[in-house]
Amino acid sequence: MNDLAVHLTDGKDKHLYEQIYEYIRDEIKGGKLLDGEKLPSTRSLAEYLQVSRSTVELAYDQLLSEGYIESIPYKGYYICRAEELYQLCLDPKMAGGIERIFEGRSMPEAAFPVGQSVGWEVQEKKNYEIDFSPNAIDMNAFPFGTWRRITRETLNDDRKELFFLGEPKGDAGLRLTICRYLHSSRGVNASPEQIIVGAGNDYLLLLLQHILGKEICVAFENPSYRRAWRIFSSFAAKTVTVASDGNGMRVDSLREAGADVAYCMPSRQYPTGTVMPIGRRMELLKWAKEAEQRYLIEDDYDSEFRYRGKPIPSLQASDREGRVIYVGTFSKSIAPAIRISFMVLPPKLLVQYEKNCAFFSSTVSRIDQTILDEFIRSGAFERHLNKMRKLYKEKHDLLLEELRPLLTKYRLSGEYAGLHVLLTSCAASEEEALVRMAAQRGVRIYGMEETALSPLEKRYKRHEGRPATLILGYGGLDGKAIREGVRRLREIL
Amino acid sequence: MNDLAVHLTDGKDKHLYEQIYEYIRDEIKGGKLLDGEKLPSTRSLAEYLQVSRSTVELAYDQLLSEGYIESIPYKGYYICRAEELYQLCLDPKMAGGIERIFEGRSMPEAAFPVGQSVGWEVQEKKNYEIDFSPNAIDMNAFPFGTWRRITRETLNDDRKELFFLGEPKGDAGLRLTICRYLHSSRGVNASPEQIIVGAGNDYLLLLLQHILGKEICVAFENPSYRRAWRIFSSFAAKTVTVASDGNGMRVDSLREAGADVAYCMPSRQYPTGTVMPIGRRMELLKWAKEAEQRYLIEDDYDSEFRYRGKPIPSLQASDREGRVIYVGTFSKSIAPAIRISFMVLPPKLLVQYEKNCAFFSSTVSRIDQTILDEFIRSGAFERHLNKMRKLYKEKHDLLLEELRPLLTKYRLSGEYAGLHVLLTSCAASEEEALVRMAAQRGVRIYGMEETALSPLEKRYKRHEGRPATLILGYGGLDGKAIREGVRRLREIL
Repeated sequence: MNDLAVHLTDGKDKHLYEQIYEYIRDEIKGGKLLDGEKLPSTRSLAEYLQVSRSTVELAYDQLLSEGYIESIPYKGYYICRAEELYQLCLDPKMAGGIERIFEGRSMPEAAFPVGQSVGWEVQEKKNYEIDFSPNAIDMNAFPFGTWRRITRETLNDDRKELFFLGEPKGDAGLRLTICRYLHSSRGVNASPEQIIVGAGNDYLLLLLQHILGKEICVAFENPSYRRAWRIFSSFAAKTVTVASDGNGMRVDSLREAGADVAYCMPSRQYPTGTVMPIGRRMELLKWAKEAEQRYLIEDDYDSEFRYRGKPIPSLQASDREGRVIYVGTFSKSIAPAIRISFMVLPPKLLVQYEKNCAFFSSTVSRIDQTILDEFIRSGAFERHLNKMRKLYKEKHDLLLEELRPLLTKYRLSGEYAGLHVLLTSCAASEEEALVRMAAQRGVRIYGMEETALSPLEKRYKRHEGRPATLILGYGGLDGKAIREGVRRLREIL
Repeated sequence: MNDLAVHLTDGKDKHLYEQIYEYIRDEIKGGKLLDGEKLPSTRSLAEYLQVSRSTVELAYDQLLSEGYIESIPYKGYYICRAEELYQLCLDPKMAGGIERIFEGRSMPEAAFPVGQSVGWEVQEKKNYEIDFSPNAIDMNAFPFGTWRRITRETLNDDRKELFFLGEPKGDAGLRLTICRYLHSSRGVNASPEQIIVGAGNDYLLLLLQHILGKEICVAFENPSYRRAWRIFSSFAAKTVTVASDGNGMRVDSLREAGADVAYCMPSRQYPTGTVMPIGRRMELLKWAKEAEQRYLIEDDYDSEFRYRGKPIPSLQASDREGRVIYVGTFSKSIAPAIRISFMVLPPKLLVQYEKNCAFFSSTVSRIDQTILDEFIRSGAFERHLNKMRKLYKEKHDLLLEELRPLLTKYRLSGEYAGLHVLLTSCAASEEEALVRMAAQRGVRIYGMEETALSPLEKRYKRHEGRPATLILGYGGLDGKAIREGVRRLREIL
């Protein structure tokens, strides 16, 4: 312990007992104090180090409680066997070590063909100065202070129960809150029992496959939300694309395709922005009612943002037969990282859920659920939504203003709601060429083709002379970027 | 605004501007201030209320930024159209309203047969005074203070990037940390690229099904971890049970069953507590190597807790051919509610993941990932593990001490590790009867039969004269409960 005496400082940074504790701990971990070795008594170490005995006792207590040493009655303190201890070596130098070990293994070379993306961080990625991504949102106005305060308050009371596993469906409190929110904002009729909370839409759609069973055929419009298409295509269900017109998915096409389940976005189809009128909604509900296993999945992904006219009610609100599965998320209205989505199951599917899936543990931590619940109940969510709607409307209005000179050659659609608009060329034009030319100017725009579901994509391409449709998202851009982005686009459009 | 003048108080609780803002907001929401109505100018309202003009301006700014009112240049402030606003009615009285609405719907009665569990909160649940659950953990020693501090620090800097969606596999930082931890504590050889972070084991096993494909046959011991069995049985894969002996899963039985994938727990089988010796491990690895699509799933669920002898290395550490899928969790070592598990994919399956599943969004929020990462990197996790190991060892030792008088009639196994031990009767005995008798004394114990996988359960029951095996978990019980629980058990065993 000579070293310790030399290095011990009545420091401002660390209490003396901590220095003693850390010194001995490191000696044990470094193998300098060996298994079974006896430590000096607290009294003699205190005398040697010229500190109070209680300081040494505190250090020993800490070592004791962490299992580095043990106390044998009437004998003293002994070092525990080293192999019983966790020696987590988190030295940054270790990283190289691991990689070297990995290199030395018989790793099949062919598993990583050169140039193929296998998700390495080193992957090349083109950076655009201005990205009109339809998925970006604005986090600058996020009430970080409020979120922080609610988080702090949630954790403040050592609420142990929050660290235990909650109900598989999600906490009852949050489900009730979501239920009320959906009822008041979207007209959704449901009891909290029908709500399943999960870590993102992707997870809920996976779960939904398990609820619906493998033998189903799911219909999508084309283009549509590609991720949902991929999830349903990836494993069990059969997927088909069906025709749509200006009112949305066509029911005759749904019948023809022999679909069991139709995936739709009645409030605002992605990416076309089509709002499904009440007539078509009734047709769809009627179709669903005709056979036992038919359901409509209503993806209500960005219904929070409408800038003109009355809010479009949900399809679920018109459903009297329990045929609509409503899926919603807080990714757009709060933040993508929140990882909390929810679905509302019709009663019959709830029974299927209880039978096949109720044993799946919840994928959202109770702490996060409690924070979100309080965020909504306290009114902070409502304030945030109103603020964001105003902010997005300003961006939307500015974009429309900037795009105006282009409207002799392009037709605008999908405006007054959501976080993107569409520009369709009046003459035949090549999307790919336009996207490429924009990229050369540091601007990322999106072609409709990019959102098409794979099977139709090729047919699309073969169809020569189609007008180009460009998707321009504005959620993540500030006024300056919108102005500059459109200025550059005007050079090429 | 007469009311406002009356109610406005130079309060200690709320700033004057907040009171003005809330008053006007509630008037708008309550429909008392109508769409398009003009508000008094800031000057005249300030004079009327006898407050400073800047106070009124602050209130108007807030209303403006939340979209309740709009400012028209040279004209003044006007109330926005009400239907454009979110009026989240979160009044508790609403709940009844929703339920009434729901009752009024044409909900198929037959969907909820009386008495069938469909997960209603009102479900009857037997409460035991003392529950020897093998899944319970002790949260009393959890470093809430540290967790809170790290959470606070993580949120403190308005780190916007944490609110965006992270990498599908999990954040690079956390994956590196897990990689180092697994290497130093379990000998796992992997690069961070091979690690997939997900919201719990259930989710990761779902994902694993998608990676492995549908045409696989997964083998389990019987009894085994029932939840994993149910997940693999529930949807795609074929599941079989294979024979095991004192060394774990038998390879001849695996061959006979035609299995592609074997689910095993080499460090400590659940529930038997069997530790797989190196010979059997090598046999299993050899079996896996024999065919292209064979893999071993190593569920290392509670390897952190060993109270005697050297830590058992992971099976993955001995794998030279990339045949082991290692699955681990922080549910036992930190808290079940954390909802963070991880799996280590061998290189060939990583390619499959990139192909089939890389588009699935991460199921864990970046905030939670960052908190966990810091918890491990700061050394708090190591300290916590050592503390918990010591604490669980004390409970374990006490339980063994208390059980000693029973060891003339019962054989003890599975001790010195994990969070449960097993008692097997020397003579033939009825588990069910013992569990029932314990329940009558307010004590929940678990029969081996309860953990058996369904297909073999019946055969088990037909096999008359089998000795009873009882599972006694102690993680969640304090010393007093352990003593009292065993005292009551001694009356019946």
